[in-house]
Amino acid sequence: MNFVDKLLQAGKKNNSLVCVGLDPDPKLMPAKIGVYEFNKAIIEATSDLVCAYKPNLAFYEAMGDDGMEVFSKTVKCVPSHIPVIADAKRGDIGNTSKAYAVALFDVLGCDAATVNPYLGFDAIEPFLQYAEKGTIILCRTSNSSAKDFQSLLCQTPAGLRPLYEIVADKAQEWNTRGNVGIVLGATYPDELKTIRRQHPDLPILIPGIGAQGGDVAVTVKNGVSPQGDKAIINSARQIIYASKGPDFAEAARQACLSLRDEINKYR
Amino acid sequence: MNFVDKLLQAGKKNNSLVCVGLDPDPKLMPAKIGVYEFNKAIIEATSDLVCAYKPNLAFYEAMGDDGMEVFSKTVKCVPSHIPVIADAKRGDIGNTSKAYAVALFDVLGCDAATVNPYLGFDAIEPFLQYAEKGTIILCRTSNSSAKDFQSLLCQTPAGLRPLYEIVADKAQEWNTRGNVGIVLGATYPDELKTIRRQHPDLPILIPGIGAQGGDVAVTVKNGVSPQGDKAIINSARQIIYASKGPDFAEAARQACLSLRDEINKYR
Repeated sequence: MNFVDKLLQAGKKNNSLVCVGLDPDPKLMPAKIGVYEFNKAIIEATSDLVCAYKPNLAFYEAMGDDGMEVFSKTVKCVPSHIPVIADAKRGDIGNTSKAYAVALFDVLGCDAATVNPYLGFDAIEPFLQYAEKGTIILCRTSNSSAKDFQSLLCQTPAGLRPLYEIVADKAQEWNTRGNVGIVLGATYPDELKTIRRQHPDLPILIPGIGAQGGDVAVTVKNGVSPQGDKAIINSARQIIYASKGPDFAEAARQACLSLRDEINKYR
Repeated sequence: MNFVDKLLQAGKKNNSLVCVGLDPDPKLMPAKIGVYEFNKAIIEATSDLVCAYKPNLAFYEAMGDDGMEVFSKTVKCVPSHIPVIADAKRGDIGNTSKAYAVALFDVLGCDAATVNPYLGFDAIEPFLQYAEKGTIILCRTSNSSAKDFQSLLCQTPAGLRPLYEIVADKAQEWNTRGNVGIVLGATYPDELKTIRRQHPDLPILIPGIGAQGGDVAVTVKNGVSPQGDKAIINSARQIIYASKGPDFAEAARQACLSLRDEINKYR
């Protein structure tokens, strides 16, 4: 089953648009627990409440030699009907991007990966060639410096348009296999609204609610497809660090349930 | 010693602008040799002829669990007076980019890293804060799709300018600690010439000669600083895969020597 179908089915089964970000930070985790055990407990406590999980590679790479093994074990721990999105933001020239796609899809077994558009089509094509896997292209990121380049107004045959709109158009154009999504931060609700209107059917991964300040009601209203789906609303810190005590998994479940229900209220 | 000083001293000592790309591909390597042993032999055969080494993370990640250990051992194998540039092309929001910087600089011990500018300043700042380490920002990459976004003409107070020029200006602006460089592909000699004129003192990492088709004479002429240095001219396949036989290390040495001397002829 391809990524988008898997995403939609998991979202339907769990009645959820919530994606849990598995971004382990030893400073925020309960004491005396390994990263894998932490992730496993979080996954077991939330897997009936989510549409996807999204581990970010950076946190595993920062762990040193064991990091990739922990990442790989974490992916295997996710029930097979729930997609795993590798938040990797990769992008390199052709043969090198191919190696990244092999690493994320074949070696680590993820269902989708985030990629950076700066290098253009041939950097993304090796990912796209995996028809069953999702390729989610950064469009408008959730950070405050996103404006530095993404908001630049660029010359196009249709007049001046911001770079992130041009990226979204290219994502649509490259979606010949039905396996492309885009990233739009909840911290930019107007941009989210505009791009969703321009691309009603593209899956949109939406980080930036919770700790980063994005509003849930506005995010849902502006971000879901006309069918009320195809939004992957990510939350990491608010869920996985809901408690630092021995009740962390149950606290994560409650935070996840509460976010799921809040989102559903506005769908 | 900071990255730029280390780079210039190694380049002076070895009279070289050559950077060897350590991009192991089992299909191209001699049979029956491990990646670490391959890298070690290449490094021992060329370390008096280069100004830097540049392993690309993708090839190590594609190896699976052992990849990061092989990467780490490879970095340790490089003589301490030669800088190692992690070709990682990373970029993520603040606290995540910080984790990548920890991974590349603290955990893996590299002297510099390539980063992707798409997310803007706060994605690069965690790297810049390592004053002794180099942060090399993608500007105009060597691949043919580089034009998709990097060539877009963007509105600025000074009129329409291509995105890669704006990125180069930002790199200069962010160079308050003297630790910033940029990437410009040898496959775009005119762009290289323009940016070198606009930024005479920025170190420029130049991939794209050899297999990718960049011309050595033009690259040197357009890419070196007014002092004839601060160009890091990368070659991977042409050097490390000069022979697939048992003489691969000696063949790599000869290819490296020949490239060094060709470059020096035009400096």
